[in-house]
Amino acid sequence: MLSPHHDGSPLHVSDPSPALGDTVRVRLRVPAAFGPLAWVGTRSNPNREPHFSRATLLGEADGWVWWEAPVEVENPVHHYRWLLVGADGRQHWLSQLGLSSIEPRDDDDFRLVAHDPAPEWAASSVMYQVFPDRFARSAAADDRELPDWAIPAAWGDPVDPLPPGRSHQVYGGDLDGVRERLDHLVGLGVDLLYLTPVFAGRSNHRYDASNFDAVDDLLGGDDALVRLVEAAHARGIRVIGDLTSNHSGHAHDWFRAASADPAAPEREFYFFHEPGAERGHGYESWLGVPTLPKFNWRSLELRRRFIEGPDSIVARYLRAPFHLDGWRIDVANMTGRLGGEDLNAEVRQTIRRTMLDVNPDTILLAESTNDAGGDFQGDAWHGAMTYTPFTRPVWSWLQEEGAPAGGGIGFALGRVPAYTGREFHAAHTRFTAGFPWRTRLATMNALDTHDTPRFAMHARPGTVSVAFGLAATLPGIPVIWSGDEFGLTGVDGEASRTPMPWGSEADAAVAPVLETYRSLVALRRAHPVLATGGIRWLAVSDDAVAFVRESASECVLVLAARAAATVAFDAAALPDADVAARVFGDAGLAASDGAVTLATDGAAFAAWRLPGVDTPAW
Amino acid sequence: MLSPHHDGSPLHVSDPSPALGDTVRVRLRVPAAFGPLAWVGTRSNPNREPHFSRATLLGEADGWVWWEAPVEVENPVHHYRWLLVGADGRQHWLSQLGLSSIEPRDDDDFRLVAHDPAPEWAASSVMYQVFPDRFARSAAADDRELPDWAIPAAWGDPVDPLPPGRSHQVYGGDLDGVRERLDHLVGLGVDLLYLTPVFAGRSNHRYDASNFDAVDDLLGGDDALVRLVEAAHARGIRVIGDLTSNHSGHAHDWFRAASADPAAPEREFYFFHEPGAERGHGYESWLGVPTLPKFNWRSLELRRRFIEGPDSIVARYLRAPFHLDGWRIDVANMTGRLGGEDLNAEVRQTIRRTMLDVNPDTILLAESTNDAGGDFQGDAWHGAMTYTPFTRPVWSWLQEEGAPAGGGIGFALGRVPAYTGREFHAAHTRFTAGFPWRTRLATMNALDTHDTPRFAMHARPGTVSVAFGLAATLPGIPVIWSGDEFGLTGVDGEASRTPMPWGSEADAAVAPVLETYRSLVALRRAHPVLATGGIRWLAVSDDAVAFVRESASECVLVLAARAAATVAFDAAALPDADVAARVFGDAGLAASDGAVTLATDGAAFAAWRLPGVDTPAW
Repeated sequence: MLSPHHDGSPLHVSDPSPALGDTVRVRLRVPAAFGPLAWVGTRSNPNREPHFSRATLLGEADGWVWWEAPVEVENPVHHYRWLLVGADGRQHWLSQLGLSSIEPRDDDDFRLVAHDPAPEWAASSVMYQVFPDRFARSAAADDRELPDWAIPAAWGDPVDPLPPGRSHQVYGGDLDGVRERLDHLVGLGVDLLYLTPVFAGRSNHRYDASNFDAVDDLLGGDDALVRLVEAAHARGIRVIGDLTSNHSGHAHDWFRAASADPAAPEREFYFFHEPGAERGHGYESWLGVPTLPKFNWRSLELRRRFIEGPDSIVARYLRAPFHLDGWRIDVANMTGRLGGEDLNAEVRQTIRRTMLDVNPDTILLAESTNDAGGDFQGDAWHGAMTYTPFTRPVWSWLQEEGAPAGGGIGFALGRVPAYTGREFHAAHTRFTAGFPWRTRLATMNALDTHDTPRFAMHARPGTVSVAFGLAATLPGIPVIWSGDEFGLTGVDGEASRTPMPWGSEADAAVAPVLETYRSLVALRRAHPVLATGGIRWLAVSDDAVAFVRESASECVLVLAARAAATVAFDAAALPDADVAARVFGDAGLAASDGAVTLATDGAAFAAWRLPGVDTPAW
Repeated sequence: MLSPHHDGSPLHVSDPSPALGDTVRVRLRVPAAFGPLAWVGTRSNPNREPHFSRATLLGEADGWVWWEAPVEVENPVHHYRWLLVGADGRQHWLSQLGLSSIEPRDDDDFRLVAHDPAPEWAASSVMYQVFPDRFARSAAADDRELPDWAIPAAWGDPVDPLPPGRSHQVYGGDLDGVRERLDHLVGLGVDLLYLTPVFAGRSNHRYDASNFDAVDDLLGGDDALVRLVEAAHARGIRVIGDLTSNHSGHAHDWFRAASADPAAPEREFYFFHEPGAERGHGYESWLGVPTLPKFNWRSLELRRRFIEGPDSIVARYLRAPFHLDGWRIDVANMTGRLGGEDLNAEVRQTIRRTMLDVNPDTILLAESTNDAGGDFQGDAWHGAMTYTPFTRPVWSWLQEEGAPAGGGIGFALGRVPAYTGREFHAAHTRFTAGFPWRTRLATMNALDTHDTPRFAMHARPGTVSVAFGLAATLPGIPVIWSGDEFGLTGVDGEASRTPMPWGSEADAAVAPVLETYRSLVALRRAHPVLATGGIRWLAVSDDAVAFVRESASECVLVLAARAAATVAFDAAALPDADVAARVFGDAGLAASDGAVTLATDGAAFAAWRLPGVDTPAW
């Protein structure tokens, strides 16, 4: 894998956040052994018409020849790729899919994006996901009266996987409970708290909001959210909420008004079927579930109330006294899409415009669990909660044979196909190639979520650290779904919503897992290159993969192995390997005879620190 | 290449032109030897949320197992792919890119398209491209006064490759000249005549229109176009025109008015720069060429005059007395795109809506010479004049070493990279995978055009028939750029605009070339399967490729070889190979020992007819 290299990182791109019309300098590294080149440069595609920009030779350092080309950012998402023409006339295209002798497609181009970028802190965040009903109870929870639909559960009760308990069991976790446990987050080293919905619904998950006007009293109400965000901010932890832009609950004030009176202004917020032409329950809903009526975004009044302008719901919770640091948007992929209509871009761009007006230092993440490329080009969503580039490939590579699968993670038919390390790498590459670099950095690397089985349920022995190690070292935001750090298991998205087993931190089965998570988060935070550095793959085999994250300040070499494995690569691919200092795990590294060899006698995650890449200053 | 197969053809799709909400049945063929399957079905992606539809087993025929799944068309461009789960748990995805163990990306899905389809005749057309100034002169041409910019040339004069002759040499070909030569087109067997622009400009190519209100008097005016279309229709030949939607000429009435008076209604048709902020010549233009000012499609008045409604230019020439059968749109890729604005979809959809209102039995083709996938999903353009899936791969595979290259065809830097047959196949597959099947059938398979060098200039000995044979037998509309059938050469897009060498038809150097084109068009027209049948690749090697076009009525097996070659494939891939009857060329076919072998001792294009595929009726 000693090959010409480019990515969107500061080593290779002079300005990650250009304005339209700016000229950005981009750099290509070519191994000295690649052979003589007659022409090197970029092929941009402004207004979909190719434009070539010849690169100039910057010089050679550490066995790499560096080239630089100027690229004018002519469209908000400006595509470019590299072309290397050998002295022998052979053409080599370099796109985000890698090197190819045949032309790449536009979708695999590198991109410069002139839209407003994600906040500076997005890529360096480590996220912790909390499902409020199951995280922690404050004392006040004991005094609350439960709503009519709720089935009370004690903290130690098993999660009921079947209706009605499935969605109606209430354990009584609340936002003051979260606040009281913030030191747990501090101890883990996380700095971005993602709360699943806090607005009242008729379920424990609250993805069926009854209104967006106030935080659920069952969680402590608005004041509890204010207290939580204040306390989190005091500890350097940002907090984001969760909005359902595709649908509300059928008990939502808007839907009740719309159902009760066809002349109500809210009627146009939903898709009511014509009488007589009714299918199902008389209105469009999420996957046909009657409790989740789908929003009709043609309604300008819906936009005004929910997403557009300073008085909208989107804006309200970013302002005082709440000060949320952003939103995660639920079912973003289906939002605004139905039949012949696709208003998705309008909705997402409106949400982001509103956020920029209220507080530009906020993040906007969006759920799109499959191929997210199309919607995530940088015009609104900063990063994806998606399972194609990371989650599913990791599961497929690291699964224990015969492990239970379960749904929620989007595997076809709920079956987890077995991948080799090569397939893991191919899938990761295929789905990250559709993203601009900046989107990749803000995309969630989750092993599991509230919608999926727990990864640990399913993993080969010893691979939890491999999996979370990859989450912590690949480009993207590492995510801990609360409870993973306690080694919780759960066979599906319901069972994984287990109440947190507070008090078990020192148990023999828990302490090492906690330590794994703590130390991998610490690794991530100790090395900023893991947040924003480039990435170059060095070796890929059935049982192990190796890559290096790179910046001018430092590099981190990573080995992830699911079993005993030895991988080797050309020493020229990593000139400083001989001075590598191990900073995580205990695999072996040997540099000799022109090759670097990484070896482990079992599943392992290991990392080494190396000097920064030697490159001319910009 | 014995592999599960699906494509958009009638063997595999019950309805190629469904309406939104229809359920279409789709079929998959799996070689009996593929191994036991636990699950077979489709994965659709309505509103970007996956939906699986299990297939039922139809039965086995000729060693193929057939499966059928119902797919509801939920969006106007409805994506689907196949999933095959082996009894061993292995997952095999089948997309337009082929079989993959890892998930495909959405862009490679098969598609069902609910937009209005191209006319029935589109896919079965064989196109002949005429550049009016260079095709034929009627007697009336002698009496015409040339415009001020014209440099008169006699028919036998060489084409001047340099300005001012380059664009200003006028040979005086006219539309009556074309009409008088229609029997040449009849003799070739073509049935779709594509005229490059016929509106007056200040150049011989007329891509710099001075108005769209009348046919250039130099070509005989409106009446000559009416006469030509009538005469062509009488011979079963349809005629399409050429519109420049990206720009006009700077001598266009609209641009003159706009330039003369900032208050003119036409001012908004173009992008004039603010005084003081001027770059270049004071307005946006095609690639900075001042004579080609770019249209600003925000202007509703421009839309009304040019593309929208029954009084627009687009409509006018489709109606009596002109009766054009459609349009080819110039520089469609850049149309409506500039900086942060992209109105391309609005413009193309408006053009097609206007055409549907005036005469739905018309075709809309559009120039997009690189990756055309994004704009050609079926919402407006029926097919692409593009060079990525066919033209460039053919050139790269069949080029003579050391042949001159020249620009115009979009090769990077004008250099033609050398491809093996495998690379030819990979490039063809990569770029056709981005199209719905119907777009692929209406896309132009051109060896060259008025913008490119002549293919014959450049080809290995004996490969013109291979190249045009591929144009005639791959999905898409075969195109003859006038003069190719005379063996004309031309080193670039200017030189290839050679006046037609009428009278040389019987020359020893010309007659066999004419016969090659005639016979390949005849092959195409004798076998409707070559227009609308499925395609399955059978063998790919450095020097030869083989595929079969398939329908229930007949199949045609094709071998294309650039040099002596033998390719073989599993006999199970083509069960009827033993009764194949050669219908073109003279390569050998042998079926024995479970393999089919195709062999040639030099460059060759050969085709065999086989019985139709044995499949259950719909």
